[in-house]
Amino acid sequence: MSSQSERSTLLDTWAETSAHVFDSMVAANRAAFAALGVEATTDEEVPAERVEPAEDLPEWHAETTTDSPETVSVGDRFEFTKTITDDHVRSFAASSGDTNPLHLDDEFAEQTRFCGRIAHGTLVSGLISAALARVPGLVIYLSQDLEFHNPVRIGDRITAECEIVEDLGNSQYRLMTRVLDGEDVAIDGEAVILIDDLPEE
Amino acid sequence: MSSQSERSTLLDTWAETSAHVFDSMVAANRAAFAALGVEATTDEEVPAERVEPAEDLPEWHAETTTDSPETVSVGDRFEFTKTITDDHVRSFAASSGDTNPLHLDDEFAEQTRFCGRIAHGTLVSGLISAALARVPGLVIYLSQDLEFHNPVRIGDRITAECEIVEDLGNSQYRLMTRVLDGEDVAIDGEAVILIDDLPEE
Repeated sequence: MSSQSERSTLLDTWAETSAHVFDSMVAANRAAFAALGVEATTDEEVPAERVEPAEDLPEWHAETTTDSPETVSVGDRFEFTKTITDDHVRSFAASSGDTNPLHLDDEFAEQTRFCGRIAHGTLVSGLISAALARVPGLVIYLSQDLEFHNPVRIGDRITAECEIVEDLGNSQYRLMTRVLDGEDVAIDGEAVILIDDLPEE
Repeated sequence: MSSQSERSTLLDTWAETSAHVFDSMVAANRAAFAALGVEATTDEEVPAERVEPAEDLPEWHAETTTDSPETVSVGDRFEFTKTITDDHVRSFAASSGDTNPLHLDDEFAEQTRFCGRIAHGTLVSGLISAALARVPGLVIYLSQDLEFHNPVRIGDRITAECEIVEDLGNSQYRLMTRVLDGEDVAIDGEAVILIDDLPEE
């Protein structure tokens, strides 16, 4: 499920800092979360990582070709990049219930075809949701097809790329969605979203 | 991505406690996580919820019709039930990067068509991954199609139901997958998995 509030305000700020259509949307004022964002520890007392609504952590990177719900159209692209840490994998295991040792147990995972732990595919697909959350307007997830092509390792920095490929009418759009891990395609697929108007502020 | 280690050992234990083919797979010896499993707080100092590989938290419930990789076949079912807490939604926002205020901001969400906050669709789909992790053997996620039909509220207790509907050969299976929130279908779709042999212990 995806959308955002105050996105246009944020985009206005970002737009002022860049002359490029493909604006860099890196946020820079969330220093409190900097250490947590890259921390990899199994200490059970580590605080849960927290973000505020519509917040971007410093290590995240988002890009978009449009900042206005009125102009969303075929060809618009939305990208989101972050690192997948051990903390993210362990908290997703607890949040989803997927405690597959392929994701959590080094010794087990080393004996599999992957020769080491990998991130949950569903967690990796969450970056697509994060990219779609950067589409201007209140974005509602209608469907998502996923093909898992390559594993993502703990510590990998990955990018979700989404591009609108069809205007389905009634504010619905079909997008090509994929997640890249370096040059490897981790996930390929497509999504359909509905864009509602944002609530009035 | 899904599979499990020591699943056969765990299943042997569970099988001893039940004469039913549709074995209850509730684990009961993880009291240390009991409070965390149902906690809903926005305190940023709350410790991150942790689980061990192949562990089940007390509030989770899993059921399966088979415990042997050799006998997996069309008609076998795998279910997984858990509650989606505010903590899960907030940690998924940080782990995935989807900080859509529809999931995090009560005031914003109340003004949308959902009249309140809802869980991320991708987080909800994580329960399908958790159910597939209970398929005996080393389960590898090849694909997943998702249609989001109804929202899941914070605090809802939801169930993923997966049933093998086709043996595709080469240890690959197609499954019907859905997530139920009470009587509502939250997610409908299908998955394809590959079952590798478990590493030798």
